[in-house]
Amino acid sequence: MIHIPPATRIVKLSGDYGMSGFVMRRGGRLPEVQIACETWGELSQNHDNAILIFTGLSPSAHACSSPQDPAHGWWEYMIGPGKPIDTDRFHVICVNSLGSCFGSTSPSSTNPATGKPYGAGFPELTIEDIAKAGHHALNDLGIEHLFAVVGASMGGMSALAYALQYPDEVNYLACISAATRALPFTIALRSLQREIIRCDPGWNGGDYFGEEGPDCGMVLARKLGLMSYRAAAEWRHRFNRARMAAERRPQGPFAIEFEVESYLDYNARKFVRTFDANSYLYLSRAMDWFDVADHGGSVNAGLARIHTRRSLIVGVTGDILFPLEQQKEIAQGLEKAGREVEFVELGSIYGHDSFLVDEERFAPVVRRFLDEAAREQAADAR
Amino acid sequence: MIHIPPATRIVKLSGDYGMSGFVMRRGGRLPEVQIACETWGELSQNHDNAILIFTGLSPSAHACSSPQDPAHGWWEYMIGPGKPIDTDRFHVICVNSLGSCFGSTSPSSTNPATGKPYGAGFPELTIEDIAKAGHHALNDLGIEHLFAVVGASMGGMSALAYALQYPDEVNYLACISAATRALPFTIALRSLQREIIRCDPGWNGGDYFGEEGPDCGMVLARKLGLMSYRAAAEWRHRFNRARMAAERRPQGPFAIEFEVESYLDYNARKFVRTFDANSYLYLSRAMDWFDVADHGGSVNAGLARIHTRRSLIVGVTGDILFPLEQQKEIAQGLEKAGREVEFVELGSIYGHDSFLVDEERFAPVVRRFLDEAAREQAADAR
Repeated sequence: MIHIPPATRIVKLSGDYGMSGFVMRRGGRLPEVQIACETWGELSQNHDNAILIFTGLSPSAHACSSPQDPAHGWWEYMIGPGKPIDTDRFHVICVNSLGSCFGSTSPSSTNPATGKPYGAGFPELTIEDIAKAGHHALNDLGIEHLFAVVGASMGGMSALAYALQYPDEVNYLACISAATRALPFTIALRSLQREIIRCDPGWNGGDYFGEEGPDCGMVLARKLGLMSYRAAAEWRHRFNRARMAAERRPQGPFAIEFEVESYLDYNARKFVRTFDANSYLYLSRAMDWFDVADHGGSVNAGLARIHTRRSLIVGVTGDILFPLEQQKEIAQGLEKAGREVEFVELGSIYGHDSFLVDEERFAPVVRRFLDEAAREQAADAR
Repeated sequence: MIHIPPATRIVKLSGDYGMSGFVMRRGGRLPEVQIACETWGELSQNHDNAILIFTGLSPSAHACSSPQDPAHGWWEYMIGPGKPIDTDRFHVICVNSLGSCFGSTSPSSTNPATGKPYGAGFPELTIEDIAKAGHHALNDLGIEHLFAVVGASMGGMSALAYALQYPDEVNYLACISAATRALPFTIALRSLQREIIRCDPGWNGGDYFGEEGPDCGMVLARKLGLMSYRAAAEWRHRFNRARMAAERRPQGPFAIEFEVESYLDYNARKFVRTFDANSYLYLSRAMDWFDVADHGGSVNAGLARIHTRRSLIVGVTGDILFPLEQQKEIAQGLEKAGREVEFVELGSIYGHDSFLVDEERFAPVVRRFLDEAAREQAADAR
């Protein structure tokens, strides 16, 4: 069962899309859209302290704990009172992406036209749609302008799409371990995950509601995902060739026996049934499709649409999913367009997932960027 | 259907294992063993010009064409008259690995005890067993001593195992894109491939004989394999984000659309049904298990057992399956043991599979090594 975190707020979009529904970039329409989010900290009187956070593929909007939900969030070290994204100073909104299963409208939502879940009948989803839905949700929350938009991985793509589409509504951008477009190796990795899920008879063309669903396919796909999120060097250090204790080993031909296999198995099985398979497919494909070059004819033309006062672009050596050159490309494109950019290359051993776990490296970088940005904005206001 | 290349010779092992059968390293026994091989060139009168070639996971013994079988072999550019492994000078034997499905005894062979294919009842297979079966086959062919043993990828592991186990019977070693032991990232990659096959209901615990077999699982596993064989840089250059022409795109939700997806699909489907799923599982696991440190307590102690006069160790930058540090480890271990070693690092963009396709870089390296070795041996004989 999908767990909707208790502090989730549901924003039913009332915005400007009116009678025709929420028009998706690739042509489909959603007659009704709701966006799940969590918020922390107070919105200032002149509405100049809002930070919007987009998530990666799998997290909910529960980015950090709060009195209403003391459970650790997925970016607990980064957000909170006195933390790098300081909720004593900023009003922080984390949105659950359109298409994700943690409260936002998604393939598991009821299609009002049929009274049944959308399943594979959900319209084609893009990163731009995710950014737009977030934008509408903010408007409905009375936030017309952002101090900053922040995102890592898929969330970094969504943050780029936001800054591209609403260039006059965001002052600062922090884009971590993201890319302007997916490279073929990454497309292949995600395509194979989707095919593994689709090949599971339990997927049933996306219509598994009330049934068990493609659990086996999801376990396998998640393992492949996890392999792309971490770096080979970390595993070498952490597991090397250690074997599972005999009493922990499953039986049967070709059963797992190395600790690295056990780690993947544990984490993949934990993930399955906490995430909807169709959401996985839709969000995964949205990342393959995303291409900043669609906005103006080239990557640099697209990046030139971003008018943030300053941007922080962070990448990690050894990220095989969003390689460092891709963050360099963002920074160089923004610079070429005359924007102020801070590019930071971090030598973390955790690969793509570093932003989730490497507090030591990431916290100071984000803290400093937001501190300086806040000082800059305060100076401007004087 | 598995295609046994027409020039295949079958050697029914009669060697020293006698009544107890062929004893496997991990304890199982095979009452009868045959090894498929192809040979090229003439064995010299004093039997000093034999080169044994072990293959990677998936090829047959058909490493190059001949009058009996003009079809291109898997290492066509490397072997033949006047080629780097010169069949005008050397007697070349390529063996199909024990456990592989191209004529050698394997899980698809008939178990004499039951009259049915072994399936998952085949004994546990190791790289050392592959080397030993190759050794027995050579003895039955009347070859007591090798000028050189050569192998790449899994074949490089088999060549190491051969040189380790029969140190006095091999003069030169050429070990390409191999390793003394698998690292956890590589174990995870292979483990996931095996699990994908095992999860296909068509696998049926290894008993799919006369049935369709785990075709879907094999396609998915092979795609993952192919992703680990090539380098991201090559695909970026070759495919980038090119889309398939509309008329070539399959229909259906989440169907493939990028050229890189089409490439993987084409190659994976070509592979399936030309390779036995159980052989894939057995050979794949043998690579995970292989560890030179099992021979003497440490990697260096194991490598010190190799007494070749000189070794060529080749690695490729950007190989994610057998990273370059692993070939360096072999070279350093041999050097530490006082052996003569030539270590070559090649900057190919093709990743792990470079030895199969990058003739320009690989041919001169192997040619020079064997030329010098032959000169050295001739000088010794004078």
